[in-house]
Amino acid sequence: MKLDHIGIAVKNLDEAVKFYRDVLKLELEGIEEVPEEKVRIAMFKVGDVHIELLEALSPDSAIAKFIEKKGEGIHHIALGVDNVDEVVKELKSKNVQLTYDEAKLVSKGTRKINFIHPKMTGGVLLEVVERLVKHE
Amino acid sequence: MKLDHIGIAVKNLDEAVKFYRDVLKLELEGIEEVPEEKVRIAMFKVGDVHIELLEALSPDSAIAKFIEKKGEGIHHIALGVDNVDEVVKELKSKNVQLTYDEAKLVSKGTRKINFIHPKMTGGVLLEVVERLVKHE
Repeated sequence: MKLDHIGIAVKNLDEAVKFYRDVLKLELEGIEEVPEEKVRIAMFKVGDVHIELLEALSPDSAIAKFIEKKGEGIHHIALGVDNVDEVVKELKSKNVQLTYDEAKLVSKGTRKINFIHPKMTGGVLLEVVERLVKHE
Repeated sequence: MKLDHIGIAVKNLDEAVKFYRDVLKLELEGIEEVPEEKVRIAMFKVGDVHIELLEALSPDSAIAKFIEKKGEGIHHIALGVDNVDEVVKELKSKNVQLTYDEAKLVSKGTRKINFIHPKMTGGVLLEVVERLVKHE
């Protein structure tokens, strides 16, 4: 298990990108829309891990609701695993509460994910992610 | 620049350690008190980065105030740099607001740190840290 990325909910993606790219000089890997999650994301590479900035595409996206409730900030952290189905099975056997009953394919089938409920983790929305296609 | 650690504010360190160590099976590196920050911390290794759980030692610690205001959850993320004084100088030249005018030595002189104000970063308290002694 390793850290895959940190997801940060922002109000204005372009403004945030300017800070992370131009001031901190992190390497911008790309900006894309993820319609199934109703977000636009910018992915940065920081050593072996990624920082993902997320902007809501509509008021009913999870990111818009998060910002409305808590303000901008870290929305989730993601642990990369080799086999998310196995991890989900094991977590369930330990009565860990998950968002989806089974891991869900996202990003055009390139990632399979689930989330552990924050009440188990010290308030952190913890994603487990298996990358089915290696990130370029 | 690389990700050094993610700091998570928790109410009960021992309970949180059980989840991260026994359920997620992350490698616990150690538990220690950091009196100058009024916290007790547990450090986990996740690949090349660390997850730091922080419990307040007194009601006036930053962690206690954070939990009172926002609840448990991610308190900061830390970017590791080779020379924190140089980074601080450059950030200041770009009018980035920092917590300390000069980077501060902590943890018995093993780390030199500063923090970037969340209003610059999309709501994230961003630490910059130089490790003066390599983590075991």
